[in-house]
Amino acid sequence: MARILTGIQSSGRPHLGNILGAILPGIELSKDPNNESFFFIADLHSLVSLKSGPERMEYVRAIAAAWLAFGFDVKKNVFWRQSRIQEHTELAWYLDCFTPFPMLANATSFKEKSEKLADVNAGLFMYPALQAADILLYNANIIPVGKDQKQHLEMTKDIASRFNLLAGEEILVLPESQIDEKVMTVPGIDGQKMSKSYHNYIDIFLPENELKKVLKKIVSDSTPLEEPKDPDSDITFKIYSLVASEAQVETMRHDYLQGGYGYGHAKQALLECMLEKFAEPRRIFNYYMENDDELEAILIDGEMKAREIAQQTIQKVRKILGYSS
Amino acid sequence: MARILTGIQSSGRPHLGNILGAILPGIELSKDPNNESFFFIADLHSLVSLKSGPERMEYVRAIAAAWLAFGFDVKKNVFWRQSRIQEHTELAWYLDCFTPFPMLANATSFKEKSEKLADVNAGLFMYPALQAADILLYNANIIPVGKDQKQHLEMTKDIASRFNLLAGEEILVLPESQIDEKVMTVPGIDGQKMSKSYHNYIDIFLPENELKKVLKKIVSDSTPLEEPKDPDSDITFKIYSLVASEAQVETMRHDYLQGGYGYGHAKQALLECMLEKFAEPRRIFNYYMENDDELEAILIDGEMKAREIAQQTIQKVRKILGYSS
Repeated sequence: MARILTGIQSSGRPHLGNILGAILPGIELSKDPNNESFFFIADLHSLVSLKSGPERMEYVRAIAAAWLAFGFDVKKNVFWRQSRIQEHTELAWYLDCFTPFPMLANATSFKEKSEKLADVNAGLFMYPALQAADILLYNANIIPVGKDQKQHLEMTKDIASRFNLLAGEEILVLPESQIDEKVMTVPGIDGQKMSKSYHNYIDIFLPENELKKVLKKIVSDSTPLEEPKDPDSDITFKIYSLVASEAQVETMRHDYLQGGYGYGHAKQALLECMLEKFAEPRRIFNYYMENDDELEAILIDGEMKAREIAQQTIQKVRKILGYSS
Repeated sequence: MARILTGIQSSGRPHLGNILGAILPGIELSKDPNNESFFFIADLHSLVSLKSGPERMEYVRAIAAAWLAFGFDVKKNVFWRQSRIQEHTELAWYLDCFTPFPMLANATSFKEKSEKLADVNAGLFMYPALQAADILLYNANIIPVGKDQKQHLEMTKDIASRFNLLAGEEILVLPESQIDEKVMTVPGIDGQKMSKSYHNYIDIFLPENELKKVLKKIVSDSTPLEEPKDPDSDITFKIYSLVASEAQVETMRHDYLQGGYGYGHAKQALLECMLEKFAEPRRIFNYYMENDDELEAILIDGEMKAREIAQQTIQKVRKILGYSS
């Protein structure tokens, strides 16, 4: 039985890109009876870039509601908010002291981000050490990561090895990364990769009229209604292909090529398809967003499970380091 | 009523230099009825340089026992082990995200130490942010510091101000540093400043025969027994001046100047003086070192008091940052 651990970003409400690229594959993975899935909302990490408390609160709730809305089984798996388990930051400090400063200073991700961002804070720098704590606290075996995160995983292994060397035994479990080569890239309404930071995302949980407004903003060319259109270069069609059934996609392709079918029609079809396909998730999402107590109870339940494991690990670490007998 | 906070280094057993330079003045300060003293054993910080668990455990016990041995009043004041209050590392992470990376990178202490040390770890780099958490968690008003720590105090104030700016109110109390100009420098047995890292320290809690052996190693010149000696250039005399009474010091000065009085005599006088002066602290120290349960109970009691205050602060911080409602 392998333990799979994934940190879920929480610096925005989940959008279609997150749902298709992370939530649905994550839930699929979590259904494998040979695996245990440990999924946490990385709300401590989010402080590096997001300072607003009310926004963080809303995003964390929305993310939890979205995972539940798409059927994530919180009984089989473990689901928690990172900030609720104090052992994350405690272990991070211990690991800091086993992390060579140059390793963090030379991390590609830090170098790239610190050139781009206005707010280069110490949290951005320490990010990989907190990430190592997230992973090592739960004895995770497999960490599904994008290619850009592979270096951080190597650091986690390096830090864990240094600790184990001191301990003289394998207290911390060395995880393996699992690079997902076929990461789905969902285009945003401007055709770039859908991302909160590009402001080009589609929030499928919006009320119908607001969702309709967003879809209307999908960029298209100016081919007149009557003329045939190239489906493969059109953004609306690309997004539709990701949510509609094969038969529906074929029908729309045919409509595009035939002419007499406008982008407005396609956008209306996309809206209807989304409303139908996501009807149940939208209902559940709204339910949890309106019933905060129930959402909170589910998270607290997961946090009790997570805390128990985290405390076992930290207890071993404290013993080795002389913080408890 | 001002709250004075001091972190006590814990990377070695307390020696004469620590006792005269930190413990006795700290206890003196803590007796002022206008002040509350918050003294903690900085055992999280010690991990930056000290990795051995058994050593840390012994040092922390010895330090706690030494403070108690010299009469530190744990009922009036608050005394705890930093590692036992998880809020230290939790707040440190939050503050990391309000700490500009260049501020830490340019810290004088980090630059100096990173040039000297073999193990330049991320803990060394993050040190000032953890220190800021130590201070801000307890709403401390006054931080007695050496000159070399003044910059870290300025950083604490800077970080706290950034947080308060976001909060829109003064959640974190800005502390003031109190530079102690007349810091006592105790010479070690080689005449350099007494320090664990120079291996020149006198552990006054050693059994008599071992203490005698250490004092015998105090460096002296080769003036023959019969000849007069210069008290002011002799290390034994300097150390004796710091522990003996004025009358005793005058007598020894006279003996030195007269001749016929050897360094061996002076060392014997120093031993007797220490055994007499420190008789009660030695007894109490050994009592606590042998009765670990009692020492532990005192510390746990202090940690309950510290935790209550730390939790009040962290609760306010969490609310501002959206980690709790």
